[in-house]
Amino acid sequence: MKPKQALRIAGKSAPRLDGLEKVTGKAVYTGDIEFPGMAFAKILRSPVPHARIVSIDVRKAESLPGVVTVLTRDDLKGLNYQYGAIYKDQSIVAVDKVRYAGDPVAAVLAVNEDTAEEALRFIDVEYADLPTVTSIEEAIAPGASLVHEKWSGQAELRGSSYGAPERFKGTNICSVFAYSRGDVEGGFKKSDHVFEDTFRFPKVQHFSMEPHTMVAHFGQDHLTVWSSCQDPFGLRDQLAGIFNLPLSHVRVIVPYVGGGYGGKLYVKAEPIAAALSWKARRPVKLVMGISESFKTVTRHPARVRIKTGLTKDGRIVARECEIYMNTGAYADAGPRVTQKAGYRALGPYRIPNAKVDAHCVYTNTVPAGAFRGFGAVQVAWAYESQMDLLAERLDMDPLDLRLKNLLKKGEPYTPGDTPVDCDLKEGLMKVAKAIDWKAQSKANTGKGLSVCLKDAGGTFKIAGATVKMSSDGSVVLLTGTVEIGQGSRTALSQVVAEELSTDLEQISVAQLDTDVTPYDVSTSASSSMTVMGLAVQRAAKDARRQLLEAAAKVMGCKIGDVKLKDGKVQGKRGHSLLYGKVITDYFGSKAGEIIGKGLYRDIRTKKAALGSTTTFWEVGWGGAEVEVDRDTGEIHLHKYVSVADVGRAINPVQCEGQDEGGVVFGIGHTLFEQMVYEDGQLLNPNLVDYRVPNFRDLPDEFISTLVENENGPGPFGSKGMGEGGLLPVASAIANAISKAVGIRFYDLPITPEKVWRALQAKEK
Amino acid sequence: MKPKQALRIAGKSAPRLDGLEKVTGKAVYTGDIEFPGMAFAKILRSPVPHARIVSIDVRKAESLPGVVTVLTRDDLKGLNYQYGAIYKDQSIVAVDKVRYAGDPVAAVLAVNEDTAEEALRFIDVEYADLPTVTSIEEAIAPGASLVHEKWSGQAELRGSSYGAPERFKGTNICSVFAYSRGDVEGGFKKSDHVFEDTFRFPKVQHFSMEPHTMVAHFGQDHLTVWSSCQDPFGLRDQLAGIFNLPLSHVRVIVPYVGGGYGGKLYVKAEPIAAALSWKARRPVKLVMGISESFKTVTRHPARVRIKTGLTKDGRIVARECEIYMNTGAYADAGPRVTQKAGYRALGPYRIPNAKVDAHCVYTNTVPAGAFRGFGAVQVAWAYESQMDLLAERLDMDPLDLRLKNLLKKGEPYTPGDTPVDCDLKEGLMKVAKAIDWKAQSKANTGKGLSVCLKDAGGTFKIAGATVKMSSDGSVVLLTGTVEIGQGSRTALSQVVAEELSTDLEQISVAQLDTDVTPYDVSTSASSSMTVMGLAVQRAAKDARRQLLEAAAKVMGCKIGDVKLKDGKVQGKRGHSLLYGKVITDYFGSKAGEIIGKGLYRDIRTKKAALGSTTTFWEVGWGGAEVEVDRDTGEIHLHKYVSVADVGRAINPVQCEGQDEGGVVFGIGHTLFEQMVYEDGQLLNPNLVDYRVPNFRDLPDEFISTLVENENGPGPFGSKGMGEGGLLPVASAIANAISKAVGIRFYDLPITPEKVWRALQAKEK
Repeated sequence: MKPKQALRIAGKSAPRLDGLEKVTGKAVYTGDIEFPGMAFAKILRSPVPHARIVSIDVRKAESLPGVVTVLTRDDLKGLNYQYGAIYKDQSIVAVDKVRYAGDPVAAVLAVNEDTAEEALRFIDVEYADLPTVTSIEEAIAPGASLVHEKWSGQAELRGSSYGAPERFKGTNICSVFAYSRGDVEGGFKKSDHVFEDTFRFPKVQHFSMEPHTMVAHFGQDHLTVWSSCQDPFGLRDQLAGIFNLPLSHVRVIVPYVGGGYGGKLYVKAEPIAAALSWKARRPVKLVMGISESFKTVTRHPARVRIKTGLTKDGRIVARECEIYMNTGAYADAGPRVTQKAGYRALGPYRIPNAKVDAHCVYTNTVPAGAFRGFGAVQVAWAYESQMDLLAERLDMDPLDLRLKNLLKKGEPYTPGDTPVDCDLKEGLMKVAKAIDWKAQSKANTGKGLSVCLKDAGGTFKIAGATVKMSSDGSVVLLTGTVEIGQGSRTALSQVVAEELSTDLEQISVAQLDTDVTPYDVSTSASSSMTVMGLAVQRAAKDARRQLLEAAAKVMGCKIGDVKLKDGKVQGKRGHSLLYGKVITDYFGSKAGEIIGKGLYRDIRTKKAALGSTTTFWEVGWGGAEVEVDRDTGEIHLHKYVSVADVGRAINPVQCEGQDEGGVVFGIGHTLFEQMVYEDGQLLNPNLVDYRVPNFRDLPDEFISTLVENENGPGPFGSKGMGEGGLLPVASAIANAISKAVGIRFYDLPITPEKVWRALQAKEK
Repeated sequence: MKPKQALRIAGKSAPRLDGLEKVTGKAVYTGDIEFPGMAFAKILRSPVPHARIVSIDVRKAESLPGVVTVLTRDDLKGLNYQYGAIYKDQSIVAVDKVRYAGDPVAAVLAVNEDTAEEALRFIDVEYADLPTVTSIEEAIAPGASLVHEKWSGQAELRGSSYGAPERFKGTNICSVFAYSRGDVEGGFKKSDHVFEDTFRFPKVQHFSMEPHTMVAHFGQDHLTVWSSCQDPFGLRDQLAGIFNLPLSHVRVIVPYVGGGYGGKLYVKAEPIAAALSWKARRPVKLVMGISESFKTVTRHPARVRIKTGLTKDGRIVARECEIYMNTGAYADAGPRVTQKAGYRALGPYRIPNAKVDAHCVYTNTVPAGAFRGFGAVQVAWAYESQMDLLAERLDMDPLDLRLKNLLKKGEPYTPGDTPVDCDLKEGLMKVAKAIDWKAQSKANTGKGLSVCLKDAGGTFKIAGATVKMSSDGSVVLLTGTVEIGQGSRTALSQVVAEELSTDLEQISVAQLDTDVTPYDVSTSASSSMTVMGLAVQRAAKDARRQLLEAAAKVMGCKIGDVKLKDGKVQGKRGHSLLYGKVITDYFGSKAGEIIGKGLYRDIRTKKAALGSTTTFWEVGWGGAEVEVDRDTGEIHLHKYVSVADVGRAINPVQCEGQDEGGVVFGIGHTLFEQMVYEDGQLLNPNLVDYRVPNFRDLPDEFISTLVENENGPGPFGSKGMGEGGLLPVASAIANAISKAVGIRFYDLPITPEKVWRALQAKEK
């Protein structure tokens, strides 16, 4: 490990800048926004999973006292009412038909929420039911009922590089990602063993503490939207498109966001709130309940078939992956998630011959979109479960099998992409050591390992930042990264304080507002520390240069003779000036400021499988020790070890928090979480019937270790993180269960009932 | 006149960008800001003009239901509670004594305005009365009661370059401006005639449609203030000082402002709102009534003695001016206004020997501060009235006397300052022609002329601007200029649209927010078009350069081969690309933006009387034809001609509106307006007893002419304007009255009663 660069502020566990504000209830969230004349919206959602809309009658609802207006398909004329992250397949409200139970059909605007809610019952909608497809199997069956008659896969509907070959026309498959290298069939022939396994991943929800919340105010010819969202600039694009406005006439402001996890990426109900404001010419607030978040976006359920050929001594020769991602009723980010799932399906291993086919499938269920891990979670569950199966079948130690096949640092994942940027073996050995891999487990107890990686930082990233130093030397940072709880405000401020050699207390982060904040693609893909971090660092360096130039002028010396130290510019011979003094002297007034600009622009042009090389590789190593309760089927987590490759932790305690949070998310879908459908109806969209992990579900011993090799492209050698820890959880736990009781699970979640039934079946 | 540069957008009377929003009631003003948990403040004002505070008992008030808290001097510990534009002589609430009837003594915060208002009556304050000084004469009399025992004139209290010589210690004179050149006594000796006259100017109020309004929210360690103010950055400085916060922890946001005229420059009641929020930890709204605005800030009453020596053929040889400005109970901008009044007292004439002494005097009246014309109004009233008196005494035509003495273009006003930048004779002749100067008037009818100038643009100006072009080519402008009704949004947007060759509809102006908007000193001194205009133009040019560079790269040609035209980049051979296409192709994504920065920095270092040379000269020429009703004393304005030197009108109809508005302001203080004091009590702080001009008071014929010689330093040869039209009004009308009925008025306003009494006296 190379010696670390000495840092003053970055690299230390500074308390969160937003901490006190949040725990004392002073932090402003979108739900806190109020305006005179504000009206409140509620959404009428389809009770049926798939139907043609015969008629909508809102007269009774509109005549209720306190109802301002009702929005239906009849109001959409003049608007470009279709939108979507990738395909414009979603309407502000349903037009011809509804495609899932929960699909917005109309929205009521009233003087208060209760009246709006009450009025929903007075809207008469006549539906003509259509056959329903809920599962991947139903959706891809020949002759299946089509969720979208107009096939989104075709080029003219795309407006993007996503899509599917013509042969899928007339099916529910709306996009396909295909990748191959070498000769996969030849590889299987050359292999001593070929094994094929199929794994399934359930439909789960992000479960942000704050449900989707938005305020829209359509002024004269300007639309302002406050939204709890992760991509204000993308939202601005879509709203400008819908309302035919220049981007400069649409302003998106993001107050604090109470959790995102990908669920607040891309347009959600903002077009409904905006259209109501446009119709009623009043400020509109739309706050969803948690049940409505369940009916808005989820993770993709998946079916992943992996076929792997190996030599008898355990070298992987070939792998074929067939992936189906259930994107629900609308594509949302599905084609992109599918692409990433496909690309990430090969795992961290050297595989000379490979072939991947990933399909994005419409069904009559809640749309699935971005979710922490973004396609990697589903395939990592599969490939790392299979890895243990392969070891078992070859009678090898799963650790040895992994070590034999892991990519080395500097090896390409796929030709043309950024080579692997860390030592995959190093982290795995840390986990093995921490979990005491070679030691014997007690009865009903077992250990499991997993190592996963994903390309990270996003594709075609563009991020700008501005650093504004006032005449007292204090600084406001303008950044498009949304503080969704991940601690970006603190970490990015640390980068600024470090570069400008000032205290963290001198730094504030400006409200995110597309009118004034420099452009950023989105807060996603673990990109904030690397991509935005670099933009912020560059902006700070730009301000630093200007400050030094001003100081040299004021102090009458060369720029090489001055340097920044602890809020002062130091000249030669011990002479020093406070930053504020430099600025006011330079401007000759009690005034002036220095503005530094920074830009990150993805200009890598190498030909890569996804068209853009990855910014960095995010790696997650996990190890679990579980005990299975044979009487109840309950899985008890004795120990969980997570190792994260962070390059350099800008704020170590925040990194650990992110890593642990990722693991807990993983524990959720591994052991508890699943959205259950019956007859096209979602049965458990609520806090009682949908079970997320609670404190009692934490491992008895929970170790999170950060690997800091300064190998990241971000400031001071940092990498992005926060998704990696999530990836290995399900497979590590499933592998441990297999060791403990000899039962292999192919489907998640591994509930007590499933375990108990499997134990019963095995004992028979 | 040189031929005008051809322009597409600038130079045309584009409709106001904020017009529809405002007339439809959609525009957001500070009073429209609401927050959950917001409480409402009312100020307890002193009923007596000058007294020591013996005790304050708030127990009854605090126990009223709905009262959140009461702020008194007992709460100020830990705050730097004194503030002020120039001297820190004002307290958040009164501490030791009250200095005028209306001085804030306490403030109540309650759940609504009515409760807060009601609670004021339950605060018991015991006062020990002190002798009162209301007029300049009382205040400067030997042994006068001192408004401030601790003399502000002394250096250690100043924190600025303002002050008074030591001999004024222990008086009510808090600052002095002295200027002289040549040998004024020698000049008088050499003169054939020496005349001395004294003129008085009344106390008048700005009368903005929107009274002072503010919202303060003290968060964890951040203070956010929404204020109807003209200098958010200055307000930020003062609030940061009061609460010991870095500037980056104080955020000032300025929604639309319903009129400013200088009355919303510098801190007003914002510290009260902020201190209440700091104490109660709730958002606080403080909305003054119009009567409270009267008790907050006014124009300076003045006494101006002018002694002028001339040759018998009318050449001015020497002039001495003695000026007293009544700044009320607190200095506010008084020392600066006094300085400017002194500097501007010589008028637009060639005067070889000159001496000016201007004094700023405390009295027990409402503080006087900045007000459209800023000291020039009072002295212009004097010197242009005297000019007609001089002509009369020399038996010369007032026009001829002026023409003989007017400074020529290029001549210095004072040595070292920017030379006169326009043809003063040209404008005067335009007025004379429009008013048909040589033609005989009917009985009781007369004509008057006036020509006035002021240095403009402000001293030590710093202004930044940012132009943010999004990926569709539309633009958001960040500017610190406050839209106070003067039309700056539209005019500055026209500059951007012109430079970027795009439509005005593509431009929006971002909300003014000190966190993100580049620094600007203030919206004052007719500076927005020149000072901020240049910053905006430079920002647009910077964006333009970047756009051209991106286009050259995208189009594969040299930067010299591309140019901007109507929203497209044109290359060679007719190839052209929309701006949005250039940006997205350049960034290789449906994303990206171009950010241009512009800065205006006053770096002129020539030694000038005020320490900084004037940016430009603002000139106002006026001509009036009046008829005097001998029965009622009413003055009827038959005609008013205003000529303004605007360099180049960026938006002609807005310039005319500004010029006409200035004239109407002038009509107000000339004929109607005066704050009347009796026993230290202001008698008419309301809409009924204080008379402002209404539509019936407009001249029958009202001509506003713009001189456009492209002689300004602003974009496309523009100059600032909007104050010039105000300056000549009083003297032009008084001169016309003198011609009509042979009566000279030395005091304003010239009310029917005064006229009637003077007519009666004359006829006796």
